[in-house]
Amino acid sequence: MSGNTGGELDFSIETLGPARHASPMALGSQPGDGIVDFVDDGQRILFDLDLATIREELTAGHEPAALELAGPRSRLHFRPSEVRAAIVTTGGLCPGINDVVRSIVLTLNWHYGVREIVGIRYGLRGFVEPHPPPRPLKPEDVRSVHREGGSFLGSSRGGPTAKEIVDFLDREAIATLFMIGGDGTMKAALAISEEISRRGLAIAVVGVPKTIDNDIPFVDATFGMITAVSLARQAVDAAHAEAQGALNGVGLVRLMGRESGFIAAQSALASGEANFVLIPEVPFDLDGPHGFLACLHRRLVSRHHAVVVVAEGAGQHYLDEDGSRGCDASGNPVLGDIGRYLRGRIVAHFAEHGVPVTVKYIDPSYMIRSAPPTASDAIYCQQLGQNAVHAAMAGKTALMVGRVHGQQVHVPIRAVANRRRKLDPEHPLWRSVLQSTGQPVRMINEDPAGPAVTPHP
Amino acid sequence: MSGNTGGELDFSIETLGPARHASPMALGSQPGDGIVDFVDDGQRILFDLDLATIREELTAGHEPAALELAGPRSRLHFRPSEVRAAIVTTGGLCPGINDVVRSIVLTLNWHYGVREIVGIRYGLRGFVEPHPPPRPLKPEDVRSVHREGGSFLGSSRGGPTAKEIVDFLDREAIATLFMIGGDGTMKAALAISEEISRRGLAIAVVGVPKTIDNDIPFVDATFGMITAVSLARQAVDAAHAEAQGALNGVGLVRLMGRESGFIAAQSALASGEANFVLIPEVPFDLDGPHGFLACLHRRLVSRHHAVVVVAEGAGQHYLDEDGSRGCDASGNPVLGDIGRYLRGRIVAHFAEHGVPVTVKYIDPSYMIRSAPPTASDAIYCQQLGQNAVHAAMAGKTALMVGRVHGQQVHVPIRAVANRRRKLDPEHPLWRSVLQSTGQPVRMINEDPAGPAVTPHP
Amino acid sequence: MSGNTGGELDFSIETLGPARHASPMALGSQPGDGIVDFVDDGQRILFDLDLATIREELTAGHEPAALELAGPRSRLHFRPSEVRAAIVTTGGLCPGINDVVRSIVLTLNWHYGVREIVGIRYGLRGFVEPHPPPRPLKPEDVRSVHREGGSFLGSSRGGPTAKEIVDFLDREAIATLFMIGGDGTMKAALAISEEISRRGLAIAVVGVPKTIDNDIPFVDATFGMITAVSLARQAVDAAHAEAQGALNGVGLVRLMGRESGFIAAQSALASGEANFVLIPEVPFDLDGPHGFLACLHRRLVSRHHAVVVVAEGAGQHYLDEDGSRGCDASGNPVLGDIGRYLRGRIVAHFAEHGVPVTVKYIDPSYMIRSAPPTASDAIYCQQLGQNAVHAAMAGKTALMVGRVHGQQVHVPIRAVANRRRKLDPEHPLWRSVLQSTGQPVRMINEDPAGPAVTPHP
Amino acid sequence: MSGNTGGELDFSIETLGPARHASPMALGSQPGDGIVDFVDDGQRILFDLDLATIREELTAGHEPAALELAGPRSRLHFRPSEVRAAIVTTGGLCPGINDVVRSIVLTLNWHYGVREIVGIRYGLRGFVEPHPPPRPLKPEDVRSVHREGGSFLGSSRGGPTAKEIVDFLDREAIATLFMIGGDGTMKAALAISEEISRRGLAIAVVGVPKTIDNDIPFVDATFGMITAVSLARQAVDAAHAEAQGALNGVGLVRLMGRESGFIAAQSALASGEANFVLIPEVPFDLDGPHGFLACLHRRLVSRHHAVVVVAEGAGQHYLDEDGSRGCDASGNPVLGDIGRYLRGRIVAHFAEHGVPVTVKYIDPSYMIRSAPPTASDAIYCQQLGQNAVHAAMAGKTALMVGRVHGQQVHVPIRAVANRRRKLDPEHPLWRSVLQSTGQPVRMINEDPAGPAVTPHP
Repeated sequence: MSGNTGGELDFSIETLGPARHASPMALGSQPGDGIVDFVDDGQRILFDLDLATIREELTAGHEPAALELAGPRSRLHFRPSEVRAAIVTTGGLCPGINDVVRSIVLTLNWHYGVREIVGIRYGLRGFVEPHPPPRPLKPEDVRSVHREGGSFLGSSRGGPTAKEIVDFLDREAIATLFMIGGDGTMKAALAISEEISRRGLAIAVVGVPKTIDNDIPFVDATFGMITAVSLARQAVDAAHAEAQGALNGVGLVRLMGRESGFIAAQSALASGEANFVLIPEVPFDLDGPHGFLACLHRRLVSRHHAVVVVAEGAGQHYLDEDGSRGCDASGNPVLGDIGRYLRGRIVAHFAEHGVPVTVKYIDPSYMIRSAPPTASDAIYCQQLGQNAVHAAMAGKTALMVGRVHGQQVHVPIRAVANRRRKLDPEHPLWRSVLQSTGQPVRMINEDPAGPAVTPHP
Repeated sequence: MSGNTGGELDFSIETLGPARHASPMALGSQPGDGIVDFVDDGQRILFDLDLATIREELTAGHEPAALELAGPRSRLHFRPSEVRAAIVTTGGLCPGINDVVRSIVLTLNWHYGVREIVGIRYGLRGFVEPHPPPRPLKPEDVRSVHREGGSFLGSSRGGPTAKEIVDFLDREAIATLFMIGGDGTMKAALAISEEISRRGLAIAVVGVPKTIDNDIPFVDATFGMITAVSLARQAVDAAHAEAQGALNGVGLVRLMGRESGFIAAQSALASGEANFVLIPEVPFDLDGPHGFLACLHRRLVSRHHAVVVVAEGAGQHYLDEDGSRGCDASGNPVLGDIGRYLRGRIVAHFAEHGVPVTVKYIDPSYMIRSAPPTASDAIYCQQLGQNAVHAAMAGKTALMVGRVHGQQVHVPIRAVANRRRKLDPEHPLWRSVLQSTGQPVRMINEDPAGPAVTPHP
Repeated sequence: MSGNTGGELDFSIETLGPARHASPMALGSQPGDGIVDFVDDGQRILFDLDLATIREELTAGHEPAALELAGPRSRLHFRPSEVRAAIVTTGGLCPGINDVVRSIVLTLNWHYGVREIVGIRYGLRGFVEPHPPPRPLKPEDVRSVHREGGSFLGSSRGGPTAKEIVDFLDREAIATLFMIGGDGTMKAALAISEEISRRGLAIAVVGVPKTIDNDIPFVDATFGMITAVSLARQAVDAAHAEAQGALNGVGLVRLMGRESGFIAAQSALASGEANFVLIPEVPFDLDGPHGFLACLHRRLVSRHHAVVVVAEGAGQHYLDEDGSRGCDASGNPVLGDIGRYLRGRIVAHFAEHGVPVTVKYIDPSYMIRSAPPTASDAIYCQQLGQNAVHAAMAGKTALMVGRVHGQQVHVPIRAVANRRRKLDPEHPLWRSVLQSTGQPVRMINEDPAGPAVTPHP
Repeated sequence: MSGNTGGELDFSIETLGPARHASPMALGSQPGDGIVDFVDDGQRILFDLDLATIREELTAGHEPAALELAGPRSRLHFRPSEVRAAIVTTGGLCPGINDVVRSIVLTLNWHYGVREIVGIRYGLRGFVEPHPPPRPLKPEDVRSVHREGGSFLGSSRGGPTAKEIVDFLDREAIATLFMIGGDGTMKAALAISEEISRRGLAIAVVGVPKTIDNDIPFVDATFGMITAVSLARQAVDAAHAEAQGALNGVGLVRLMGRESGFIAAQSALASGEANFVLIPEVPFDLDGPHGFLACLHRRLVSRHHAVVVVAEGAGQHYLDEDGSRGCDASGNPVLGDIGRYLRGRIVAHFAEHGVPVTVKYIDPSYMIRSAPPTASDAIYCQQLGQNAVHAAMAGKTALMVGRVHGQQVHVPIRAVANRRRKLDPEHPLWRSVLQSTGQPVRMINEDPAGPAVTPHP
């Protein structure tokens, strides 16, 4: 599910300084004795799994890209009893935010004895705005927050400068800052850690990447993604029911995915009912003999119903003719609504050809991102929270925690800044989608490669 | 989530002979052109991800264990138009069986043009029993089977000999046999492929491992497992509500897991409400100052409610005093009911100490295994079905398809026979469980290691 | 949940003629023997439950409005072995359509031995269009259709004349026609039964009212309504999470309800999180000191988040300034999108007052109507199908089956034509909504009555 | 869904004395003005709906049984600012308890300005036991409790005497007591209100009947029942998957229902997959040519799978041979496990006849009763809580609130004490079950009535 290429990657992790204090956790150190052990900084896992590549690199004396394993360290940078922690959640909602916050609070309190924890309200603005003030967080405050979606701390886009935020951290004597947010927030985390370093402060900044689009590089998936797919599958199933319920019925679903089609691809696959999936990574023509409308036309003539799934970032050039739509407060470009556009084009196309069709358009986005997480995301969130705390207590900083090849690791934030993970059209995931939908591999008119993957009859 | 050790593993895949026919699938062969490519047999991924280990092996001139990538091959062993395929499902139910069968049928039919597919009824016995006869399977027969749990073909344990089964395959001119089943079925698949080889037949035998306990070695997880966890989480949440609803309430949940505690561990983690998890891999005492009952006693005194999750295979020695209970038709030992036993012991313990408790016992097993799959399992099942077909059409045999480190691969069945995957008590998953529950790392009286992981207050 | 007023209602049921044949069902006739009995035509239940009203009516010698109980009759009009039946589904999707069709088919086949049943494809048009032809329906064809939403027969709006339809019925020797559809279809059913009568034919026409808006008069609720509420509740919960996730967050949900606010009202109540519910039956001003925007403003200032639920037919006069938008093929007026309009007005209002707000708009309609039914709707659908068959076999016609005061009854279609059930703003259901939301009872500027129901702090 | 017979019922409601204070709620008093009105004590609805019966009673000068409508009164007995309220939850868990408590607290606080509300901990024992003490309840304490099942106040069976409880109420100056509990609790409520009356105190005692078995007389259904059916349907569906997954598979589900088969009957109907439903109200033989085992045998021979649903109270005489099992702390007789007994008998029967069968037994009870409520139950619970408060503030006592014929009414507790609602085997609900399952109407050997309802082929 990755589709990333490592390249010449430096995954080394920054620390605040020597680890001087013993961990209060009573773990083992002897592999094989059945007692779970502290994790050693030297334990690293390969990023690239291809045997030939790794052999070549090692033979050539290159160091393969490898990631530090996350987990509790035996030696800590901070004396737990002196630690004050802050947690902030930013950007759009995503299933599992509350679970991560809960896990951070419980791990800090139960396993390290940290009693001073505050939740910053409504995103980064909460570092500077006096109302509402940061909220003290005890275990009993977070006991049931994972039953509800959203962010109980509140969130927002944009916010103050790194300098203003570090002013707050310094003034409030915060030792560990946990930032749960997307791409922009990871950049802010980097800037904050640089400002901390500039001032010679000892504050660990640990990120938990949150993006429902799953477009953070290197990690297997971001939390909330599979929950989003679970709910999006229901939308695709609904589109299927609508499509079958009418003669020449077309069920059209727009799903999240500004630059990455992971949710669209996986929801289509999970449903098993989609006939076309349009994503930002795979260009397509609308018109012409090989374009999407012609393909849809052929499908309707032969089967009389069709389900189309489109990621919100797909086909944006069709909407851009009138110039830019600017950016939101997080700096993300405002996208046009490809779903409504497609609906209009489909209706117009068939009207022109005298074929009566019924198009039902479904956009479930806000119902998806505000849901509580499924079991696998709940597990993931809990582990992310635990490992974020372990990293911060050990004095590691400017990193984010994530899962790579099924293992929880540390990823330096500088490695992910300004990169976006995309779904490689040659990745097995996209191959499965093509096989499941039976759509042509390319819906491009001047494509010399011709159609690949047998289109379904 | 693995906890496997590779050791000296030979993951090479057996084939029926040369691949003489061009695939009818129109895929690419040029990495980087945006067209999904056929997969080359040489593409292999490392099993062990630890950088130090791999470096050492390669430096020493050893070949690290590596698995062949699954996927469509450009050259096939069989001429698709001549292929007759058979599918059989065996053993206990598991979420996703119908999804796998559906995917196999659709892939065979749509992408390879295979028109002769039969479903064997009620497991291996269906190869020899005339009633009900094998059922022809067309795409329309499987269109909606993934909406329902169970196995629409029917299943059973045990069955005829490899010889009898190969008699059937030979007589019916079956070219590809797909076996969806557990440990015993994989052994049967091996015996069948050996018998095929002995007779000089060209029949590909491809397994799709099915075990709700997730105890197949090497693969990340078996299909249906995360669905089981999703539903088991509801049982743990229910136990939590029951425990909180009564003074000194104890919610006790027994979950699947004969020799492996994956479902118990993950369900507890997903719920976030469990206080004790007992699994076969981690021994525990019931009595004595460090035993489970004493730990539960301390918890009830301080918090007045507790949630206990127990895997069915845990603590079996407490039930074995009266000798063996024999085996079922699949050869699995019959287990005693540890849940009811524990309930009795808990009630007796607190009665003895004059502490009134209310114990509610939940065993959701049959409701879990018969459910349709969640989105992530639906995706997984669809991919397993696709890749099982690709492998068989290429003439590969005596293998199973599975996911390793997030990638779909081929695993030779001989490598998994007589091995069972277990949850390593030193694996990060178990560490997360201990941190989440706050239970002592060891509930053993004479344990010199003492308690690890800070128990929750 | 009714809000209907009976008035001078004639609920007498039309029949095709004498019931000459014994029912093949082996039921009892002796109340109190523990054996379920055939239902007698004389059994009727009161429509108005108010003791004072009924006393007055009976004292004055008036006949109170009363409905014939549905159920199997001991004497049938038709000889079952000679019956051919047709089933048609029309209009928009609604949870439970497939359940009703399944129940009709199984009851006809199992309990009356009717073997000739056809499903008309894609609504009324299927009576005249040759493609696709009517589909024969056997029990095995409907076995699992209730697991999926939508209509497996297909549906459409509008269609041929009553004359054309009766031509089909006569030509195909259909004895019983089952029509599952909305208001327009019930009118069509009436016209068809009149045409049948005109021609002296013996064809029973039985309707099963389907309208997700719940706007069929007299009946407690239409099938699918509570399923719609179940799913709409999730949308309201999502809006709540979105509203809480942002400072001055507003979650806005548009729900079905062209002329009746039942779904909006009940979903708000089920969620327990809505602060404002706007429905067609209760007029409101947007502007002015007592208008909705001012009320919302006060709420945001004091609580910083708000959830607004609006029925699609509410506030249509705000959208009608530019004249009519015409009607759809079923003759329903095309409505403007009050949700998007409100979103725009809310954003503009707060922009004008310099209050930053975040409005998230959710329209879950197509995801709701295509879902399979919840348990209570599944029960209801099954009973409707059973009783529709019993009525038709007894030779009753021009009626629909429905539930009144919890009992299944016959309602003559002529009684419902041209009436629409609305939510009485003085009904206890609306009172509960007002108490739950805390919204002012009237958001009208020149309202002399002033606000009622204590607004929440 | 009732099956009750009114008989000579006195439904008059007791009050504490004159209503001297104006309600703070700003409702209307003019029907037809679109403003919801206060409810007048004179408004009553008929209990019996049968036109002939009511006509006869009124003609004969008898007063038909009629129930007072629930809802806010314009005049209150209590001055709201002086009211202290107490809430207690007792007996087994049931979906919706937290919803009722939340609604009571919010209605008291928001609409009457009552600020002193306490929740008694762990049932009636909390009135006398000092630990844990009653818990003050503010709106923010109950904000999210409806998202979780169970009872956040805790519950228990049995408890102190009415005298001890009134001592508490008097000492703590409680004016209104809300008791959410079953049959035994309603009896306790009656005893408490009698003791209050004896002491000349002015304390309103209002019950909200809670019984997952739905066996409270007169009311349409108790809260939580349809949620239970929703979840039980999943168990029946699971049993169906298990039954189909094996040759001669039998899926056996035991459901709640000590003396009443409502849940079993409705779950079977909702699923549409059950073949036999056994309930306490309908006697059956196990052995003999017309007994259940013979019927099941015939079904398996013809169809090779079967689903059996049994209510826990069914067939208890088969288990009673060894004498009584005593009673639990609520005074309910301890039942034998008919599910396990049946499983044993089924296995033995087919073993004896040499027919291999696979029986899967599912008992989902504790997973069902601890779930949060579905939408319709959430609505019901919210209305019950609102109306319980309205009744108490008006000084009404010794009553319970409930829904009758879809309307919320007051029912005097003395009318329900020592009565239990059962499912009348001649009620349309049971008729629907028989038609849906196709089971014989009587599985009794010496039944002269013979089989009724056509058994399915």
